Amino acid sequence: MVILMNSDCRKADIGRVFSLLGDRSLTGRLIAQEPKTVIGVVEEVDPDLLGRLTERISGLNGVESVETFGTSYKLASRAFRDGTTAVRTGDKVIGDGGLALIAGPCAVESRNQIIRIARAVARAGGSFLRGGAFKPRTSPYSFRGLGEEGLKYLAEASRMTGLPVVTEVLTVEEVSLVAGYADILQIGTRNMQNPALLEAVGEVDRPVLLKRGMMASLKEFLLSAEYILARGNPRVILCERGIRTFSTETRNTLDISAVPLLKRLSHLPVVVDPSHAAGKRELVPALALAAAAAGADGLMIEIHPDPDRAASDGRQSLDLETFAGLAGDLERLAAAVPRPVSDGPNRPGARVRPVRNAKSRDR
Amino acid sequence: MVILMNSDCRKADIGRVFSLLGDRSLTGRLIAQEPKTVIGVVEEVDPDLLGRLTERISGLNGVESVETFGTSYKLASRAFRDGTTAVRTGDKVIGDGGLALIAGPCAVESRNQIIRIARAVARAGGSFLRGGAFKPRTSPYSFRGLGEEGLKYLAEASRMTGLPVVTEVLTVEEVSLVAGYADILQIGTRNMQNPALLEAVGEVDRPVLLKRGMMASLKEFLLSAEYILARGNPRVILCERGIRTFSTETRNTLDISAVPLLKRLSHLPVVVDPSHAAGKRELVPALALAAAAAGADGLMIEIHPDPDRAASDGRQSLDLETFAGLAGDLERLAAAVPRPVSDGPNRPGARVRPVRNAKSRDR
Amino acid sequence: MVILMNSDCRKADIGRVFSLLGDRSLTGRLIAQEPKTVIGVVEEVDPDLLGRLTERISGLNGVESVETFGTSYKLASRAFRDGTTAVRTGDKVIGDGGLALIAGPCAVESRNQIIRIARAVARAGGSFLRGGAFKPRTSPYSFRGLGEEGLKYLAEASRMTGLPVVTEVLTVEEVSLVAGYADILQIGTRNMQNPALLEAVGEVDRPVLLKRGMMASLKEFLLSAEYILARGNPRVILCERGIRTFSTETRNTLDISAVPLLKRLSHLPVVVDPSHAAGKRELVPALALAAAAAGADGLMIEIHPDPDRAASDGRQSLDLETFAGLAGDLERLAAAVPRPVSDGPNRPGARVRPVRNAKSRDR
Amino acid sequence: MVILMNSDCRKADIGRVFSLLGDRSLTGRLIAQEPKTVIGVVEEVDPDLLGRLTERISGLNGVESVETFGTSYKLASRAFRDGTTAVRTGDKVIGDGGLALIAGPCAVESRNQIIRIARAVARAGGSFLRGGAFKPRTSPYSFRGLGEEGLKYLAEASRMTGLPVVTEVLTVEEVSLVAGYADILQIGTRNMQNPALLEAVGEVDRPVLLKRGMMASLKEFLLSAEYILARGNPRVILCERGIRTFSTETRNTLDISAVPLLKRLSHLPVVVDPSHAAGKRELVPALALAAAAAGADGLMIEIHPDPDRAASDGRQSLDLETFAGLAGDLERLAAAVPRPVSDGPNRPGARVRPVRNAKSRDR
Repeated sequence: MVILMNSDCRKADIGRVFSLLGDRSLTGRLIAQEPKTVIGVVEEVDPDLLGRLTERISGLNGVESVETFGTSYKLASRAFRDGTTAVRTGDKVIGDGGLALIAGPCAVESRNQIIRIARAVARAGGSFLRGGAFKPRTSPYSFRGLGEEGLKYLAEASRMTGLPVVTEVLTVEEVSLVAGYADILQIGTRNMQNPALLEAVGEVDRPVLLKRGMMASLKEFLLSAEYILARGNPRVILCERGIRTFSTETRNTLDISAVPLLKRLSHLPVVVDPSHAAGKRELVPALALAAAAAGADGLMIEIHPDPDRAASDGRQSLDLETFAGLAGDLERLAAAVPRPVSDGPNRPGARVRPVRNAKSRDR
Repeated sequence: MVILMNSDCRKADIGRVFSLLGDRSLTGRLIAQEPKTVIGVVEEVDPDLLGRLTERISGLNGVESVETFGTSYKLASRAFRDGTTAVRTGDKVIGDGGLALIAGPCAVESRNQIIRIARAVARAGGSFLRGGAFKPRTSPYSFRGLGEEGLKYLAEASRMTGLPVVTEVLTVEEVSLVAGYADILQIGTRNMQNPALLEAVGEVDRPVLLKRGMMASLKEFLLSAEYILARGNPRVILCERGIRTFSTETRNTLDISAVPLLKRLSHLPVVVDPSHAAGKRELVPALALAAAAAGADGLMIEIHPDPDRAASDGRQSLDLETFAGLAGDLERLAAAVPRPVSDGPNRPGARVRPVRNAKSRDR
Repeated sequence: MVILMNSDCRKADIGRVFSLLGDRSLTGRLIAQEPKTVIGVVEEVDPDLLGRLTERISGLNGVESVETFGTSYKLASRAFRDGTTAVRTGDKVIGDGGLALIAGPCAVESRNQIIRIARAVARAGGSFLRGGAFKPRTSPYSFRGLGEEGLKYLAEASRMTGLPVVTEVLTVEEVSLVAGYADILQIGTRNMQNPALLEAVGEVDRPVLLKRGMMASLKEFLLSAEYILARGNPRVILCERGIRTFSTETRNTLDISAVPLLKRLSHLPVVVDPSHAAGKRELVPALALAAAAAGADGLMIEIHPDPDRAASDGRQSLDLETFAGLAGDLERLAAAVPRPVSDGPNRPGARVRPVRNAKSRDR
Repeated sequence: MVILMNSDCRKADIGRVFSLLGDRSLTGRLIAQEPKTVIGVVEEVDPDLLGRLTERISGLNGVESVETFGTSYKLASRAFRDGTTAVRTGDKVIGDGGLALIAGPCAVESRNQIIRIARAVARAGGSFLRGGAFKPRTSPYSFRGLGEEGLKYLAEASRMTGLPVVTEVLTVEEVSLVAGYADILQIGTRNMQNPALLEAVGEVDRPVLLKRGMMASLKEFLLSAEYILARGNPRVILCERGIRTFSTETRNTLDISAVPLLKRLSHLPVVVDPSHAAGKRELVPALALAAAAAGADGLMIEIHPDPDRAASDGRQSLDLETFAGLAGDLERLAAAVPRPVSDGPNRPGARVRPVRNAKSRDR
């Protein structure tokens, strides 16, 4: 921790910083006095304390800013665990060095629709079925999904194909209902900073796919993962899905750098959703290949047998044939190029292990 | 509604758009064929249908984009109501042409602290007391507030000073508890797109102060207000509190333009929180005066008798003396300059009525 | 300067940092070793060296990041000069505690147009005439201004009204031509980081109004001012004109916080251009009042006798009558409220001196 | 073109729009009257006129906004040319379906340095040598490069290895000097909207590598290319190098979606610079592979024999060995996966032709 004082702070202000550090048995050291006073803290501060301590010091008179070089998350941090945590559900896995394919429609629309799609996912070599039963909507007047009926169809499609189901849970009240049908609980981008919901899924025996908020820093993203981990659920999958920028060409801007960065900061597996980032189906194959090449542990892709007739997000859904072609391309890419996944935070170009392709692994 | 087709769309694609419009008794009209086919829809589409219809058409093959010129909210729209909706609680009001001052600490820390602050607010001419009892936190390891104990202290301070209380509610479960003590329920920036919570406060007989999400467009902001209004609660106050941009000089970037824009788009009163936007107390007076000059109906300001010892956000809290000075400056500003509040969406510079100052109004 | 090492850096990496500091007679001090090694530099580094030194250290193996707490500009810094530098041209001044009004059309269109507008500016109490003769355009197919003919009309209008002229210069070659007619040279947002042009206007005996790049940090902005100051021209006026953010409601997002921040970081006067920020004339009065309340030393506003027929930017131009009304409102605001201009970087709420209004000062 | 009127516009306002369209022999058609009047223009407007016409109409009273569905660039547009324009210099080419590797140091530091690097580039299978002789700098106090001396070293290294040279030109005056030594002229991100410089390189017989401004939309980027093309130089290479967003984890945010988008909007070849986007060398391999997988025609990568001792940008430079390893990975990727390059603007997933790798092509 480094504390920067204002250029016109008084001696008493500096004294107060030292005294506050002393109260907590921390050693302050005066680094520089010109042009501004800078105070360093010798010891590492535990993440449990770091948040509150930083707040307290920031509020002191004469303090310009506080820089914390330790992380404020610990269970999600790479310092906590080497390698990548492989998240398993049944015989499927995300984070074992392969490339997991999660696919399905934006919204479950009917029993027939989801079964037909699930079969196409399995045929193309996908490992997981996605589909929304409870849909988060910006407008109160939009379609909100089939609810429990949709969950039942998802579960049936899962039984028929052996694909575990990933589906979103929107509220604390619905967690146990959704967990009764789904294999992996998804937390959506708008709920990434909903602590009550994060804690609720932290107490359930289901992996959680946590989507990055569209305006969240990676630190905030990992702190949200920390909420889940801190409640005892170790199976968290991070999902990059695009951030909001000045660019209006795409629905969001896929932050491809988040893939190698998250792999360095955290041991949790990283999945990319190119469909929501792009918002346009014609960009999805290029972004999916890019994400795989950047080292993602998995991809989550929206597909629909007839995007023209999708109840929502048809604009960004691939048809089944294009998806099958993309799955083949991804397999070739994963086989040919060792993904540049690091086995430690600072060794550029290091690779963990040979990459097996998703298909062979999951069958 | 205007539908833009891809430059290589097929005739059948165009036909399908017309047929889908026809199914809903809407009239499509071919506007242009070169360089791209553009189809206009003659009738106004009801907001109830607009969201779904836009989604359906966007998903059709050959469709590049859909522009909707009507609004997708209606109860929050200026088209729904002329003038500004004055939100009252007891004898205090926001949105009557005056400038309402809401002030208090980030977090309630003790009975003495909140009572002392409430008295300072009243003395300076403020109308409302703010204070957090349930705190939303980015990190699971941060201070989360005193909970119900804090609510009790707020209620007591309110009784002693006559100031209505504004406090945040974080979860659906806590709505009735918080409403039992507070006069105005605050929805925080991270919950602006939490539909379950919006609907819950939409069913309570309390005004709701809705903070803009730090990444939300004004349309998304008003759609969140619409969630509350659509459940029957007409008393919604909009609060601009800074957006996230590339700039790192301030905690967030105060979007001052949102004030005149929201006044044009909506009849709901607009409050500005300069404290969270700035994140630095030395910027708060300048931003508060700017917001008042831009036409805000109120200001929400963090204050603390001893910012050095605040449990949270001390860095952005004014001390009581600086706050009293600022309140005087705001009063002079409001008295001297008719705020450029429009009485209609397109009349530049029009003014509603003479502005009375907050103090005389509220006593 | 504080240097943060990677968590897996080697001893030799740390040694190399110390040795590089030693080569420059700087003293490194080990602040912390866990979780990461942090090295502090005791002495203040001169801005002349800071840039290169930071680059060199950043490139060393094992270095994660370098934080510099000193500023990298010096002539533009408040540390260099107390108070606000008043920039004078003839009997007009910007930065003396008053509020200077600069107004005129986006582009000079004809002799009659600019003379008519100049008279309206003078009548309303404005101090400076703006108008573009050389226009920067995003598209090679847009109107580029009247060139030298436009400069002649500006000079004539200036002689008739006594208003000094502010006009943009686009290229190094045109600097002496434009300086032959204009009183203040404007550097536009797209040229803020054009060093050759900055240095060219740094060698001319004319004040320079430097517009902030729409994606520039305040540090980058002040470093661009530094380019001009370092060539010997001390008369630089900073102009905030909106930044690019995710919001599409306005042409750019007016960064109102930049006003108090720049006043703290620098002694240079700060002007705000609400017209280009808003891009919509109906928002201009609210933003102009807000900028004045936030402590701006001046405003630059686009006006046109017939915005319907403006050659460019008509959408954001006020008509002459609305402008006159706004000028009156600004005068009342400036008279009533001491603007929260600091006389030092860290004294919140301090005020320099009583504010006189623009009109009385300039006549 | 579609024109949206304000909701309270007058009949005369609408009449004026129709009359202005009539003056230009364009046919306006009333599309809708409720809730707002919308006017469509039947004919395609030539890009030569589109900019001015849009400006004129936008300025008319009662006009809310003008949407133009045609492009405002034409020579850069895919409508102008099918396929990808292959830009050749000597026996090297960018845009023929292969993956061109451009590599070299940020700045030329010495004769030995650049010759050593050039040999490493050739050995690894690279096709072009980059290196800065004139450096654009944010601060007037930073290292600005060796100037003409650096150009001479570049030319010598080029003769020894057969690699064409890419180097930046900063000012109009230096264009002919730089063109005397370099094979490809680079326009940097800060000069993307410097029309005088764009026009100067538009009149030189050298290919131009145009970097995207860090805040530029793709439309603005292509309009800058249009400036060059309109002066008669058809050999323009587009370079995505990261945009500025709220994220501070990387120097800029690599906008990977720009690759497939630019390939759809334009026939010009697209190169990606992962080094400047990331700003951290450990992210460069992942981003380079991602860009290749997304369909880039080339990559521009900063390398240095001893990044610890680089004069600038050492933090983001790969050492020669890591670069050679990356080049091998890129070759395997390009061989295995047909890059998802479209042969038309709207055919998702279509592929142009089998991809040959850069090495075999260029030797």
